[in-house]
Amino acid sequence: MVNQSCDQDGRETTVTLLNLVRFGRASTRAELARHSGLGRAVVAHRLSYLVDLGLVSEGDLARSTGGRAPRSVSFRADAGYLLAAEFGATSLAAAVSDLAGDLLVQHEEPFDIGEGPEAALSRLTELFNDLVKRTEVSRASLWGIGVGVPGPVEFSTARPISPPIMPGWHAYPIRDYLCERFGLPVWVDNDVNIMALGELRGGLARDEGNMIYLKIGTGIGAGIICEGKLYRGTKGCAGDVGHVATLEGSDVVCRCGNRGCLEAVAGGAALARDAKWAAERGESPRLAAVLAEGREMTAEEVSKAAQHGDPVSVELILRSGRLVGEVLATIVSFFNPALILVGGGVAAAGDMLLKAIRESVYHRSLPLATRELQISFSPLGDEAGLRGAAAMVTDELFAPDKVARWVPKGSPAGMPELTT
Amino acid sequence: MVNQSCDQDGRETTVTLLNLVRFGRASTRAELARHSGLGRAVVAHRLSYLVDLGLVSEGDLARSTGGRAPRSVSFRADAGYLLAAEFGATSLAAAVSDLAGDLLVQHEEPFDIGEGPEAALSRLTELFNDLVKRTEVSRASLWGIGVGVPGPVEFSTARPISPPIMPGWHAYPIRDYLCERFGLPVWVDNDVNIMALGELRGGLARDEGNMIYLKIGTGIGAGIICEGKLYRGTKGCAGDVGHVATLEGSDVVCRCGNRGCLEAVAGGAALARDAKWAAERGESPRLAAVLAEGREMTAEEVSKAAQHGDPVSVELILRSGRLVGEVLATIVSFFNPALILVGGGVAAAGDMLLKAIRESVYHRSLPLATRELQISFSPLGDEAGLRGAAAMVTDELFAPDKVARWVPKGSPAGMPELTT
Repeated sequence: MVNQSCDQDGRETTVTLLNLVRFGRASTRAELARHSGLGRAVVAHRLSYLVDLGLVSEGDLARSTGGRAPRSVSFRADAGYLLAAEFGATSLAAAVSDLAGDLLVQHEEPFDIGEGPEAALSRLTELFNDLVKRTEVSRASLWGIGVGVPGPVEFSTARPISPPIMPGWHAYPIRDYLCERFGLPVWVDNDVNIMALGELRGGLARDEGNMIYLKIGTGIGAGIICEGKLYRGTKGCAGDVGHVATLEGSDVVCRCGNRGCLEAVAGGAALARDAKWAAERGESPRLAAVLAEGREMTAEEVSKAAQHGDPVSVELILRSGRLVGEVLATIVSFFNPALILVGGGVAAAGDMLLKAIRESVYHRSLPLATRELQISFSPLGDEAGLRGAAAMVTDELFAPDKVARWVPKGSPAGMPELTT
Repeated sequence: MVNQSCDQDGRETTVTLLNLVRFGRASTRAELARHSGLGRAVVAHRLSYLVDLGLVSEGDLARSTGGRAPRSVSFRADAGYLLAAEFGATSLAAAVSDLAGDLLVQHEEPFDIGEGPEAALSRLTELFNDLVKRTEVSRASLWGIGVGVPGPVEFSTARPISPPIMPGWHAYPIRDYLCERFGLPVWVDNDVNIMALGELRGGLARDEGNMIYLKIGTGIGAGIICEGKLYRGTKGCAGDVGHVATLEGSDVVCRCGNRGCLEAVAGGAALARDAKWAAERGESPRLAAVLAEGREMTAEEVSKAAQHGDPVSVELILRSGRLVGEVLATIVSFFNPALILVGGGVAAAGDMLLKAIRESVYHRSLPLATRELQISFSPLGDEAGLRGAAAMVTDELFAPDKVARWVPKGSPAGMPELTT
């Protein structure tokens, strides 16, 4: 599959040097030689090539360490631009970003993923076109498209695989649809994977080798960063923890058919369901008022009521946190991460939720595994997905051996060939 | 810490090429150039250096693909030798191996880890000396020592950390003890980690990127291979799954102080305890006979009785498998491995145990995660630990940037310097 000619060899070393600069691991020629293990002559040759391509600039004199002061080498994030999108169960966000994942323009609107792929991708096409018009970015400087969806994706084919909350999307060729309209390479992944990637590159997780991004929304899922890289698992479904069994042994039937799944007892839909029951049974005047005012019961309403001290809502949030924490405790013992970031709609419940999660995890995990474990809310919030979708595209464009699989010529139109 | 001089750069590329040959990923100069991304001149230079050192041989003509037939490049596993040891709770195994992890001589004997580090390491020193004498191997051709112990280890310092079944071993300087006596670099790790590594290099797991080695012995623990590499986690305690809570919600108090830990209800000690109760209550004549004959009740006795059809023993084995499977189901959903290998004393219970584990996992994990998941017994059996201990040593000796941390001069006496 991969072109293993001499050109490919050139590509590999070129890309290795580019990525050392891109991730800030090397900022002088000497550092590039040291970290790549390549000779200085090879580094000089490849670097001048990257400067010619406009991907790297050699600029100001870096701080001298004795001897001649070396010039600093930096990544040109404005060499190209990307289109990034994130579908939620009930929302669609899209953006134009630079190659560092910084968003130039962005837009979010309500959208029901259940409307199916044609309607969704047609609307996304309009949004991308509108967003590009709002920037100075030319069509030729667009290099790729990254999309996150709320369900399992076979990453190699960019097709959703039996996604539970995306009716009509199973095996839909998202890549082909967008590639036809924009002439760009397209990558698609599960929303939690791109959120984890976004946090890794632009958020609190920047220095964390082993991190879990846990999204508690309507459903529950995790994105995994293992030793600094997104980990997708053998079949691409790593982190799909919404359907593991909870200790409490609930009889609630999940949409997957099993009983007592984490998502069915602790996710946003479960919170809304149980709050509605409580309101109807007259156990919570505050929740009853939501229904009386004709509003739909949602996890957000429960969060709001809990923050105002409604005891039923507080108990529901605490139970959700405790159940999530029990499953996380098993995962922490197994994976021994440095950081767990919690995001998604239910995260709006705030510190009360986080406290319950932490208590469960610390109670059930081994002391060594939790000694320096940090459990926090996602600091990037809504931007994590869009920034991560952009990061997914640059990781693929600048991968030593991957791009040939999606773009016959080796690079998108407009993007320079990275072979020498 | 790491020496980042020009010599270090030379070491990195040299070691990169050596490892490509060592793992069978490249067997010609052209393949080495392709996989390393290094120019052919650099490859030729480094390769002749490795040949001079005796680590690589260039031999027979490889199969030609048109043009001049390339000569095959292969790793010289007999360039140096290693000492490998594995402590179990009640056993000690030691061996002399070559650099490929093949065992020249080995010995196993009963040993109670509770006798403490001085007695244990003194006996190990005797064993190593005896084993070396039984081979033609000279002292100068010994390059390192690898040791597995049945408890958590801080890998960087090679010290056990509060190991529950190793009284007296907490923070004991195993490295210093053995280094003083043999003048060799020493690495120590948890037994399940080295077993996983042994399977990765020499067993069924050879081609599996993502694998879990689950040891069900007196205790329960997992070694994790993530994308072809041993994964130790942030604090080195990844895979410590013996103390996660089981769904069944048992009230059995574990040695860790919590209730319902996997190990306390499904490990070898739990099997023996429950079998003894059943024998004493007269529920199983077969198990009662074990006690009547003055033998100690062990997991092995339960396995034997189950294989002879004793209903109580069968039920105990099935319960153990079911509980292990329930925890594995959560781990499978999270980690999505390709292979789970089951080893340890309880694994002797055979297919009955494996069937119960499989049923639990398949029942509770997502279909995509189990579609191509293989769950098998460890094919290397007792050899996995010794082979893995040897593999740990070669991985460290031939790591681009690590060896300097343990050996001041960069290489053990007798081992050639890998810098150019």
